[in-house]
Amino acid sequence: MSAGTRAAIVAIGSEMLGPLRRDTNSSWLTERLEEMGIEVVRKSVVGDEPEEIARELSCSAAAAGWIFTTGGLGPTADDVTVAAIAHWMGVPVRRDERFVAAMRERWEVRRGLRMPSVNEKQADFPEGARVLENARGTAPGLWLERRGVQIVVLPGVPSEMREIFEQKVLPELRRGGASAVTKRRVLRIAGMAESRVEELVAPFYAKWKDDPVTILASPGEVELHLCARGDPATAEARVAEMEDDFRSVLGARIHGTGGEALAESLGRALKEKGRTLALAESCTGGLVSSLLTDVPGSSAYFLGTVVPYADRSKETLLGVHEETLKRHGAVSEETAREMAHGARERFGSDLAASVTGIAGPDGGTPEKPVGTVFFAVVDREGREKTSKRFFGGDRAMVRRTSAMFSLEMIRRFLIEAA
Amino acid sequence: MSAGTRAAIVAIGSEMLGPLRRDTNSSWLTERLEEMGIEVVRKSVVGDEPEEIARELSCSAAAAGWIFTTGGLGPTADDVTVAAIAHWMGVPVRRDERFVAAMRERWEVRRGLRMPSVNEKQADFPEGARVLENARGTAPGLWLERRGVQIVVLPGVPSEMREIFEQKVLPELRRGGASAVTKRRVLRIAGMAESRVEELVAPFYAKWKDDPVTILASPGEVELHLCARGDPATAEARVAEMEDDFRSVLGARIHGTGGEALAESLGRALKEKGRTLALAESCTGGLVSSLLTDVPGSSAYFLGTVVPYADRSKETLLGVHEETLKRHGAVSEETAREMAHGARERFGSDLAASVTGIAGPDGGTPEKPVGTVFFAVVDREGREKTSKRFFGGDRAMVRRTSAMFSLEMIRRFLIEAA
Repeated sequence: MSAGTRAAIVAIGSEMLGPLRRDTNSSWLTERLEEMGIEVVRKSVVGDEPEEIARELSCSAAAAGWIFTTGGLGPTADDVTVAAIAHWMGVPVRRDERFVAAMRERWEVRRGLRMPSVNEKQADFPEGARVLENARGTAPGLWLERRGVQIVVLPGVPSEMREIFEQKVLPELRRGGASAVTKRRVLRIAGMAESRVEELVAPFYAKWKDDPVTILASPGEVELHLCARGDPATAEARVAEMEDDFRSVLGARIHGTGGEALAESLGRALKEKGRTLALAESCTGGLVSSLLTDVPGSSAYFLGTVVPYADRSKETLLGVHEETLKRHGAVSEETAREMAHGARERFGSDLAASVTGIAGPDGGTPEKPVGTVFFAVVDREGREKTSKRFFGGDRAMVRRTSAMFSLEMIRRFLIEAA
Repeated sequence: MSAGTRAAIVAIGSEMLGPLRRDTNSSWLTERLEEMGIEVVRKSVVGDEPEEIARELSCSAAAAGWIFTTGGLGPTADDVTVAAIAHWMGVPVRRDERFVAAMRERWEVRRGLRMPSVNEKQADFPEGARVLENARGTAPGLWLERRGVQIVVLPGVPSEMREIFEQKVLPELRRGGASAVTKRRVLRIAGMAESRVEELVAPFYAKWKDDPVTILASPGEVELHLCARGDPATAEARVAEMEDDFRSVLGARIHGTGGEALAESLGRALKEKGRTLALAESCTGGLVSSLLTDVPGSSAYFLGTVVPYADRSKETLLGVHEETLKRHGAVSEETAREMAHGARERFGSDLAASVTGIAGPDGGTPEKPVGTVFFAVVDREGREKTSKRFFGGDRAMVRRTSAMFSLEMIRRFLIEAA
């Protein structure tokens, strides 16, 4: 098996050619293949048409030593992947009667049903194919070889595709013992503009110019994707050193690595310190609260929120002074501070935070344009912090950026209290 | 220009082969092409490698009469699309000095800057190419023809790609006067299980068997995508008749068509009736409130929310009786009702709605398993409606489904009050 280190991924299914459905398998496969030292050099989507499938296989086989196909293995007439591949390879399709019997038994034992005869088609395999058993469904995967090109045929249902890949394909790739693999790290930073993050890490670009660093920004959050290629030990050491370098300038601004959301890191910090939190959010309208309570077990530290969307309710529900609203307006540092104190007292929490701003598109003034947002965090001991920010973008962007900023401000308030 | 009605879309850019970035242009293009009667028969992603680009162009040219490429038109060394296409076509690349001068002028006039000389490369065009001006950036699109295949070369930045396609490509496609086009309609239904929607519309499947109906389900919402193909007038008439058929069984359960979110339909209904709304949400933790306030102008009818995440705050902030919590529990019809009344009184709104349930993964009991959720809606006139539901799935799914159910319940409460 020396098919080289270049792969093509082919998603088969007419539905993915329309505007409604998307191939999501290829991203997942790409990440796994990279870890195994195999580079994806092309990805494609073709319909359930034998001629198009064959054309794509020829094209892929010219470009890569590995071809991974997904989809088109179902029992119905429009699933033509197996027949198309066999035809392209110039081998006959044969029904595997032992496999038919095994499928029938599974239907009877697991579901108590007689298998519809249409399903027998899923035991039709091209001559010479190795069958990759599917523990989650009926359509097995297949492994074929043609003139040195390894062709791995997987179902389109993501859970089945992943299961077969992990159980039947990965172990063999591992045995292959790739000489160069890709190792990745994700560092997550909130409450800081992309340009500021870039400024801080830029001194390291020269050192790591051969290892791609990707900065991905979403509203209120910046992700640094580090990536190193080499033999497994070297790649791991390089990516660890990259992480150390970036940590040396970003420090506690990195709230997490990998898939952990900011609200989870904050939740962890609250739990560790045994502190409870309440919120008062105006322009974010419940988004901060929603992000916090997305986290399982958040009721251990999160007591609740008031969204005083109407100004009057800032007085009645949170005790903001009429005088404050009159003199400084609902969008002001003073109102933010009183909202936070009001929430802390009413919920009896250790900490409370507030957000009040102008998300737009209307409501902006020359002094307080759309995107102006005030934040406060207060605690039981009388510590207090406020912040004024101006965020660009549309309503959704201002709201999302504000929510992330608020979560990060609370997290840092907690850390600094230590 | 009789390139037929089959198209291939080729996204060019090595970054889209990694797991981090995705080609989003092809979905958008597909929808536009379908409307023009052009069917997309293959989509692919290749890196910025001349050899791979050429291989893909050959493959696409064999499959389709139209090729649309996106990406790789920037000024840097890794942008090789133009050179690769010219090489594949066997024509030379020539620098258009008039175009260079025009670019330089734009840099000076619009940005007050001297154009970096590296940008001159963006005036290199394959011989015989028609230049499609880019009103939003410097890289123009190109239109070429090779052996009857029309090749449209567009930039990868979505806003620029769309602008050029709409301004320079669509008008020509329209002139072509497609004989068969695809017309679509999206009908949106909330608060109803996918299986129930399917049951209601199934009687029409036989009638519309030649026109694909796609049901897409997301937590709390079902979308029916109707689609008819034919000459423009016939396709329009067919899709309108399809819509009438589906409306005849779904009626007011369809909260919207096209891209309008449920919270927008609800907002419209509240505005039309001049009614205000407040919320009390427990297990959804602010998600309903967040969806409602996503809508610009929602402060006209939305007064605010209390998220009484701690049980104690259900009493202190909403006036739920201690007795009710003790006897029925925080997750009960009685508590839901008192929460809604409490919110209505405290915010002084015309209507108020509440949600209380067990989102999981912990907190379930044999009587009230994870996924049990109670809802209430009340109004100033004393009307009252409650509902108990059981939703499957994980925490995120239960919360999302509950939020959509609540919005739809309020919408129907409003409609039925009429």
